Amino acid sequence: MDISQKNNKTLFLVFTFLLAFSSLAQNNVTQRLNVMPWPSQINENGNSFVLDKQFTISIPDKNNQRITKYTTRFIKRLAERTGIFINKPTASVDDNTSSLRLTYNRIGKLEINEDESYELVVSKTSVKLHATTDIGVLRGLETLLQLVSNSEKEYYFTGVSIKDKPRFTWRGLLIDVSRHFEPIPVLKRNLQAMAAVKMNVFHWHLTDDQGFRVEIKSRPKFHELASDGDYYTQKEIVDLVQFAADLGIRVVPEFDVPAHATSWLVAYPEIGSKENHTYSIERNSGIFNPTLDPTNPKTYEIIADVFAEMAVLFPDAYFHIGGDENKGKHWNSNKKIQSFMKEYDLKNNHELQTYFNIEIQKILKKNNKIMMGWDEIFQDNLPKDVVIHSWRGNKSMIKAASLGYKTVLSQGYYIDLLLPASKHYKNDPLSYNTGLTTEQAKNVLGGEATMWGELVTPLTIDSRIWPRTAAIAERLWSPQTIQDEQNMYKRLEVISQQLENIGITHIRNRDVILRNITDNQNINALIDLIGVCEPLKGYTRNKGGTKYKTYSPFTLFADACTADAYDALQFKYQVDSFIKNKDDADLKQIKNQLLKWSLNYSNFKKLESNPKLEQILPLSILLSDVSKQFLEILDTKDVSEEKNLKIKATLKEMDKPYADVELVIVNSLNKLLDNK
Amino acid sequence: MDISQKNNKTLFLVFTFLLAFSSLAQNNVTQRLNVMPWPSQINENGNSFVLDKQFTISIPDKNNQRITKYTTRFIKRLAERTGIFINKPTASVDDNTSSLRLTYNRIGKLEINEDESYELVVSKTSVKLHATTDIGVLRGLETLLQLVSNSEKEYYFTGVSIKDKPRFTWRGLLIDVSRHFEPIPVLKRNLQAMAAVKMNVFHWHLTDDQGFRVEIKSRPKFHELASDGDYYTQKEIVDLVQFAADLGIRVVPEFDVPAHATSWLVAYPEIGSKENHTYSIERNSGIFNPTLDPTNPKTYEIIADVFAEMAVLFPDAYFHIGGDENKGKHWNSNKKIQSFMKEYDLKNNHELQTYFNIEIQKILKKNNKIMMGWDEIFQDNLPKDVVIHSWRGNKSMIKAASLGYKTVLSQGYYIDLLLPASKHYKNDPLSYNTGLTTEQAKNVLGGEATMWGELVTPLTIDSRIWPRTAAIAERLWSPQTIQDEQNMYKRLEVISQQLENIGITHIRNRDVILRNITDNQNINALIDLIGVCEPLKGYTRNKGGTKYKTYSPFTLFADACTADAYDALQFKYQVDSFIKNKDDADLKQIKNQLLKWSLNYSNFKKLESNPKLEQILPLSILLSDVSKQFLEILDTKDVSEEKNLKIKATLKEMDKPYADVELVIVNSLNKLLDNK
Repeated sequence: MDISQKNNKTLFLVFTFLLAFSSLAQNNVTQRLNVMPWPSQINENGNSFVLDKQFTISIPDKNNQRITKYTTRFIKRLAERTGIFINKPTASVDDNTSSLRLTYNRIGKLEINEDESYELVVSKTSVKLHATTDIGVLRGLETLLQLVSNSEKEYYFTGVSIKDKPRFTWRGLLIDVSRHFEPIPVLKRNLQAMAAVKMNVFHWHLTDDQGFRVEIKSRPKFHELASDGDYYTQKEIVDLVQFAADLGIRVVPEFDVPAHATSWLVAYPEIGSKENHTYSIERNSGIFNPTLDPTNPKTYEIIADVFAEMAVLFPDAYFHIGGDENKGKHWNSNKKIQSFMKEYDLKNNHELQTYFNIEIQKILKKNNKIMMGWDEIFQDNLPKDVVIHSWRGNKSMIKAASLGYKTVLSQGYYIDLLLPASKHYKNDPLSYNTGLTTEQAKNVLGGEATMWGELVTPLTIDSRIWPRTAAIAERLWSPQTIQDEQNMYKRLEVISQQLENIGITHIRNRDVILRNITDNQNINALIDLIGVCEPLKGYTRNKGGTKYKTYSPFTLFADACTADAYDALQFKYQVDSFIKNKDDADLKQIKNQLLKWSLNYSNFKKLESNPKLEQILPLSILLSDVSKQFLEILDTKDVSEEKNLKIKATLKEMDKPYADVELVIVNSLNKLLDNK
Repeated sequence: MDISQKNNKTLFLVFTFLLAFSSLAQNNVTQRLNVMPWPSQINENGNSFVLDKQFTISIPDKNNQRITKYTTRFIKRLAERTGIFINKPTASVDDNTSSLRLTYNRIGKLEINEDESYELVVSKTSVKLHATTDIGVLRGLETLLQLVSNSEKEYYFTGVSIKDKPRFTWRGLLIDVSRHFEPIPVLKRNLQAMAAVKMNVFHWHLTDDQGFRVEIKSRPKFHELASDGDYYTQKEIVDLVQFAADLGIRVVPEFDVPAHATSWLVAYPEIGSKENHTYSIERNSGIFNPTLDPTNPKTYEIIADVFAEMAVLFPDAYFHIGGDENKGKHWNSNKKIQSFMKEYDLKNNHELQTYFNIEIQKILKKNNKIMMGWDEIFQDNLPKDVVIHSWRGNKSMIKAASLGYKTVLSQGYYIDLLLPASKHYKNDPLSYNTGLTTEQAKNVLGGEATMWGELVTPLTIDSRIWPRTAAIAERLWSPQTIQDEQNMYKRLEVISQQLENIGITHIRNRDVILRNITDNQNINALIDLIGVCEPLKGYTRNKGGTKYKTYSPFTLFADACTADAYDALQFKYQVDSFIKNKDDADLKQIKNQLLKWSLNYSNFKKLESNPKLEQILPLSILLSDVSKQFLEILDTKDVSEEKNLKIKATLKEMDKPYADVELVIVNSLNKLLDNK
């Protein structure tokens, strides 16, 4: 199809132009302001609204709990952030003398495609925030909090006019509470952080091989036998769903079937596919064989009981049934299942799973729920309202959308892989080459970051979600043209600290781990090391899934490191800039950094050692070593072959992992070596 | 009485001797080990039990939930602390090949004078912990965790033989959740910290002028109208009481009546002493007039309803009714109350309150509860089982004990006053001059640290309780002779970091506040400043009670500072040692410290300023200034009158508070000036 290709090419040129243009626009105002996600339209007006004790808020009425709670919290956050003793702790009703006037046309519904747009005008004498729905008001309030700025003497809101609305309607975060249980307070603080970056779907992965985390009143064996005592009561769930609703966040529960279901079978072995088998809660990570028996009527009876209770607790229209990674080994070896397949003319395990899915879909339909599942569930004869959740590649998303199915993308948003934020940031659900028509593209509802829980505990989970998920939030909310990576990182750094004020523990808990590692000695040498170390990416840290078990210690050096090692990233920018411009100022910064690193080992060895420190010692030695070697080269500008070989050997050594982390300055150093 | 005085003198000499002797003993082993509270008998045996993956625990049976939960958590804490991947995450039953064998004779009861003693023997090949009750086992497990030590290559338990038991049976912590609400997770982590230092009573101050924090099913107005929505459901209370019981901690609820009762009257104004008055939740701190009407039968009706529900939720034998700080102003101005007093021949407000107390005591009796109250409730005709809680001085404790009443001391343990740990540490309930007989002394059950909540939020409360409360815990558990202040501080420093591993946020949240104050700049200059700054002591920070309200920001510099400024304390020890020994090594340390401080301002001013930083700037300037002046004097050894006057002026200036903190090196500097 030549024509379409040509069209695509023209389109590509147009996009490139728009991109360049918008990047330019982005460069001005985004250098000054630290709003995230970036709004669709924003203009500075040169004014500012000064904050003081007299700051007040006006709302249309007192009966909207979502707005009264949110405004009370807004005032509290503003006071805590600025240190101002604001006189009035709550909003007034319809008072046109108020500093900040909030208005909206109607109460928003927690459903897809609800209006979340808002308009915000900060002038010298007042702040006005208007939205179609109260949910739009919440989104605008978060923008306003990000506009707080200051001089030496006062805090103020930067004067702007903003018109903003989301690009995608589904901006989600999945938290897996099965592999490691995450208590309610962990979820609440993460919901508040989600709201701070305008995310609106909490996908609650509630069951898996490693635990069944919900109280089931009609079937108490589930929480009694299959949770190690770590489960949510129904009261807690109702409370959490309300908490989310007050933040304008929908909650989609996931009950993963028919595979990833060991915990189901710990409670009810009789619906498993392996006969007379005793199941026990899985402690390792990976893909396991225990699978529900799709040929057993009791399987559907039990699922129906569970889903009926859950349908009441979770008011959202969507209900996730997982459906992923079913290898069907236990199906293959079960004679009854095999003869059932023959009888019903089901040619393979995929067809058997489809049979199962259709039964499940009927149960959900009865409970007025729309089925959602991972992309394995996709096949042509699925009812048209089923939502396909793409995780193995965006092909399934494109295919589903082109066939008229609604779809959500998680491929590219697997934050448990510990890839840098920039990687996720680049992952646009509707990148320019999907080939979807405008109409088809509307079926792409958005995306979801996925926090799988194999290697995270309440101590570390926040640092695996944040701040990177804010970059994903921007990808899903902001115009497609907002793409400047370095600028994103600049704003992310600011937002990161604000997330800490909300209660996110990603920064503070790092030092808790380091104090433990050093047995309460000075942690500065380790902090410097963390600046260049990242935990092993992908699933290499726990290859095979048996090194780390549910109860292993997650208080190791790798747990204190994060996916975007800060100093390494800054160093990369410096090296790139130096190579491009050959500027002495860059070279000086590079040398300063190398000098600091060269001293790491001498600081490290001042610590009284212990087995935990011994494990990371090689990292410190390598960092100091390589830095000294580079300083020598850069100073002398004259590199013998011998030195070159030596440095190459050190760099190669640095490429090996130690203590489940890698030194991520190797690429930059290699570049520097080639361009010195 | 000459004879008794002579006896006292002899006794004093004997005690002084014992003290010197035990301090000596203390000096050896306490220099090496960091156990807290210090055991009554401890001997090192020179061995050590090496920890590895194969570590296992054996318990007598699986049916004791307290022991199974505690041992599972013990293994987890051990793994997290050491980084060892312990193979077995739970204890086995009665396995004599286990590394650690736990045995006990019976299940302990949560009541006063229960046996909490234990014996612990760590040898090269095994660890044995035996106790009369399972509660004693928990206490011993905490000691064992404090015996973890290490070489470069391995972790081990230090070899010891310990026989230990508490000196007092009531070792409590009061948390006031009325002035600021503290969510359940805050309480749970504090209960775990209490258990770590062998405390056993959680005194839950549930109502006050600023809020009524409990769901009352028969009288829902209480939680609906008088809590701002911040209250505990009955389900949460049952859960928390069980959580405490699993840690061997009793829970004593307090419902403060008839004063401190504004929140009661917000819900039920008809039982107030001021007629036709509308009450609203108090936002300030202090002593307020709203008081229950003791002449109104409905008052007792409502109290009976509340107490009947609470008696079921709180299984403990004791029930605290407050009773403090009733000025009775509204009684004085109420004609009906005045004529009631005449009719019943009640001569003053104290007699009227006694009338009230006796009625209350009848209600509690009906519910099988023993009444406890602050020392104001004390009078001679009280039933003998009432417990007197002394807070205004220890005289009331001594009087009560001598008259046969059981009594608990909080005077001297008011941790909200932000006094140094050493002050509380010195406060012995049975100091040598109480004049009580041995028999009478038994009525002194122990003591309670009191965390009043006017100036604390979930962000800061841990840093107000810990680590100081561990010093109080030692005072109440350990032999009277354990008194070495400097050694206590040495061990406290270690315990402090271990408390952080349990989940206490006192260290990590300091930096959260500092990052907020700097708007995410380098916080090192502020950390150095915190080393010498302490929040204003006593109630001077909020004199009059109206500067800080419930909703004021508690994210200020003073909130990041703590009661024992670390560097100031070390400096004090250095100066004292220098003055005593005139040692050059001490002088060198002093000069190094002064040099560091002298640079504070130049680091501080590198920060981009903001209104929060502006407030603390004078502290930095003064610190740098005074340090420079001292360095000059110490270097030249020659001080002109002019320089002396100048330095005196600076020291005087430093005595003034800035930003609600004080620079606490003034005394040491004055000493240094006088002894240079």
